[in-house]
Amino acid sequence: MNVMSESYDCVATPGAAIPSGSTAASHRLPVRLLGIDTGGEALVYLRRDAPIFEAAGLAAPKRVAVSNGARHIVATLYLVSAHWLEDNAIGLSSRARDLLAVDDGDWVELGYLPALESFEQVRCKLAGQPFVAEQLVGIMSDVAGGQYADIHIASFLAACAGGHLNIGEITALTLAMAQTGQRLQWPTPVVLDKHSIGGIAGNCTTPIIVAIVSAHGLTMPKTSSRAITSPAGTADTMQTMAPVDLDLAHMRRVVDEVGGCVVSSDGLGLCPADEALIRIERSLELSSDARWIASILSKALTAGATHVVVDVPAGQTAAIRSREAAVRLIAQLGAVGGALGMQILPQIADGSQPGARGIGPALEARDVLSVLQGEPDAPVGLTERAVEIAGTLLELGGRAVVGEGAGLARKTLEAGLAWQQFQRICNAQGGMREPRCGRYSHTVSAAHAGHVSHVDNRCLNRIARMAGAPGAPGAGMTFVAPLGTQVAAGDPLFTIYAQSAGELSHALAYAQQHPQVIVIEAI
Amino acid sequence: MNVMSESYDCVATPGAAIPSGSTAASHRLPVRLLGIDTGGEALVYLRRDAPIFEAAGLAAPKRVAVSNGARHIVATLYLVSAHWLEDNAIGLSSRARDLLAVDDGDWVELGYLPALESFEQVRCKLAGQPFVAEQLVGIMSDVAGGQYADIHIASFLAACAGGHLNIGEITALTLAMAQTGQRLQWPTPVVLDKHSIGGIAGNCTTPIIVAIVSAHGLTMPKTSSRAITSPAGTADTMQTMAPVDLDLAHMRRVVDEVGGCVVSSDGLGLCPADEALIRIERSLELSSDARWIASILSKALTAGATHVVVDVPAGQTAAIRSREAAVRLIAQLGAVGGALGMQILPQIADGSQPGARGIGPALEARDVLSVLQGEPDAPVGLTERAVEIAGTLLELGGRAVVGEGAGLARKTLEAGLAWQQFQRICNAQGGMREPRCGRYSHTVSAAHAGHVSHVDNRCLNRIARMAGAPGAPGAGMTFVAPLGTQVAAGDPLFTIYAQSAGELSHALAYAQQHPQVIVIEAI
Repeated sequence: MNVMSESYDCVATPGAAIPSGSTAASHRLPVRLLGIDTGGEALVYLRRDAPIFEAAGLAAPKRVAVSNGARHIVATLYLVSAHWLEDNAIGLSSRARDLLAVDDGDWVELGYLPALESFEQVRCKLAGQPFVAEQLVGIMSDVAGGQYADIHIASFLAACAGGHLNIGEITALTLAMAQTGQRLQWPTPVVLDKHSIGGIAGNCTTPIIVAIVSAHGLTMPKTSSRAITSPAGTADTMQTMAPVDLDLAHMRRVVDEVGGCVVSSDGLGLCPADEALIRIERSLELSSDARWIASILSKALTAGATHVVVDVPAGQTAAIRSREAAVRLIAQLGAVGGALGMQILPQIADGSQPGARGIGPALEARDVLSVLQGEPDAPVGLTERAVEIAGTLLELGGRAVVGEGAGLARKTLEAGLAWQQFQRICNAQGGMREPRCGRYSHTVSAAHAGHVSHVDNRCLNRIARMAGAPGAPGAGMTFVAPLGTQVAAGDPLFTIYAQSAGELSHALAYAQQHPQVIVIEAI
Repeated sequence: MNVMSESYDCVATPGAAIPSGSTAASHRLPVRLLGIDTGGEALVYLRRDAPIFEAAGLAAPKRVAVSNGARHIVATLYLVSAHWLEDNAIGLSSRARDLLAVDDGDWVELGYLPALESFEQVRCKLAGQPFVAEQLVGIMSDVAGGQYADIHIASFLAACAGGHLNIGEITALTLAMAQTGQRLQWPTPVVLDKHSIGGIAGNCTTPIIVAIVSAHGLTMPKTSSRAITSPAGTADTMQTMAPVDLDLAHMRRVVDEVGGCVVSSDGLGLCPADEALIRIERSLELSSDARWIASILSKALTAGATHVVVDVPAGQTAAIRSREAAVRLIAQLGAVGGALGMQILPQIADGSQPGARGIGPALEARDVLSVLQGEPDAPVGLTERAVEIAGTLLELGGRAVVGEGAGLARKTLEAGLAWQQFQRICNAQGGMREPRCGRYSHTVSAAHAGHVSHVDNRCLNRIARMAGAPGAPGAGMTFVAPLGTQVAAGDPLFTIYAQSAGELSHALAYAQQHPQVIVIEAI
């Protein structure tokens, strides 16, 4: 017998006022589309003197439930004291409109939110208790369902940082994230995937790798996120060469047709929890080992991958700051991947400086194209890294014996087969485009002669972001002074590109204030 | 010689386009007041097709700098694609308007934000590195200055949770917070303060204590925050009896005139960093030992206190869940307070259930008044706790020898002197008011006979909050079935009060779904 469930009745006692029925808990209002782009959070606006408050008593800012009957969302309520909004309407931000799929004048119902029970587990985790698997399922389900406000997500991300999640927790998080979406299935026994831990610019090997690997008939349904802390994610760079915002059906068609794709995971709906978390990580420029692993492996899991190569550039100013940190991450990646039935092949790389010239979507795309097209001045570092990883994948896919994959990958590039395949992929994704650099540029040059003895990747990235990358695809920089370069006074070090004069000035001012970005040791 | 500062020049090289001058980095726009209450974050709205974007290239959502020449703020930028906002104006939320002190049609300048350098320290802390004092000064300065978006603050709060701050870090945090405001000074050598760790309803001893202590001529300039995770903070409760939103000058006058006050710390400006942090803690219902200590002691420090009694109710469903946790907190409080030159007297109390009948601002105020007015049915627990703490303060202030303070406090209450003094305080603060309960109510009664064997404070608090407390001052509940109470079937356990029928239904529904709030063990 459950004693607790019978401890009290909620029937009214004599003399107590009785609420006027259950309809009091929700309220119908006509929609006013406000076209406000919040970058993600769903907002609703109500007049402070709206008649609804007499009955509902909502006090802003509060999270509220909004429904049009078919769809139910959670939104943050803002009160409006000015008269640009009618007192009997509910204003919706663009995100709220998209989620509800309503139009101006449609009716929605406003209601109270149930308590956000799963956030209590985040509080407990912050207080030092470990997560158990079911809790993470609940949290990720609420995150994917929009129940978490941005500050709740920020707290959850902080709880995952700093090595506070053990292997069991990371595995459970990965699975819980994957369960918020769906898992693709492919007819081939081997499905390849490749991910990279960010932090280093000019490391956009993915389009080259997918082209090489799928040119050999292997399946590689690659989904990439846009930049989180870097000036260009793979999806940002690819978008300057072909459409990447495909829906699932289109993505499937591309892979069926040409064997591989390079599409954006944002909005694909394969892993909605990951998308929601990434949105806040992007604003905070915050990442962690646990989240890298869970993000990469949940993407691989939902993409239906069987074998995943993970590229881990390590360097003092890379995301992974030392070889020890890389080894620790790799061990965790292998353990979590293994627990989820995938074979993970992590590869540590040099992360001391950018792998190519370009930093920023269009500028990195130009490097990618120069490698694929076999141009004589193609960045060697980018070519070599792509050949190495593609080689491993060709071996995993049974197209080359161990030790000979890289050679095959190089031949595929040199014969122009990868370039042909890349054009097929772009066309299948909706048509090839030419990457365009920003029309405003400024070159920063050496103040004195010497050799380049230090490069700060974080500062280079920040300059490129201040110039507008990745939002402005033509923004960023070209970096022409790798470590060890001998320069004379006045020799170019990097050129900043921007799509507006304001952003160019802004990035340049930062570069001027941070002269330690590139250190030239006098001879 | 600083080699690094000379590594490069930012002069243009031949052939590079040159930005059109430094004016490109900021832009003047006329203000449109939107009257949007966000609860705290400063927002600005711009049309997506605003001409400014051609030159400035800002992509939303982004943090931007806004200035009217005299004041400079940081705001989050939202883009508007609808036409209710003109394309050449900048819409301001109420918070942005308050911070800038501008009116409709005034001109403001929009500019880029420098990188939020101090947040890198929060990232490092989340990654496991300790804070050093100067970093916390920088972070608190940025928090107080509005440089941090809500998600940045949420991350910082998470970094402080779970015992991750050591005594040195908590001391530095407390000082850094206090330095964002100002420190009051008083002519008396002893300045008393009292704070309580929340989590338990019906523990509103502060107005009673201030009345008793200041009736004896002691100085007690009490500043309290509004509720963070509870249904009523001291400021919320006091506000139902007298104005609490005083400015500093008025607060000083009250203390000069009658020796004590009970005013709201929110908006007083004594510790702006604390106010900013509390706003997010309130939304997240998140607290931590480090933040309790820093919040309490920075308030005490800025209030000019020399001796602080800290009330720590411990109980399974209180904020402090065990005696061990209370002892740990107390040790830290003493260490940090000592380092800051204050004498801290923590007192552990029973936190197993509410200390009085009322939960919620007006309902707790009624209990306070019944104690002060010596009514026969005044809650004994509340009276005893107030007498005990006031007694300690009277001893610290030299009005009673050790061991006799409580007796003197009780006499002060019984003689009506505290009630007279309380009326003086309320009048000095702007006039006494009568607390009003919500007009909608519903009583929940026992389903069967037995004795009350368990009370869940967290659930009681949640029900009171769902009924509208503390935003609706008349909302909450009266709790009439303390642990051990013998009840017959149908006997009242608690009565929910609300200011709207909707909120009453909402709270009642939650109570129905959580029957473990009060457990009645059958005899």
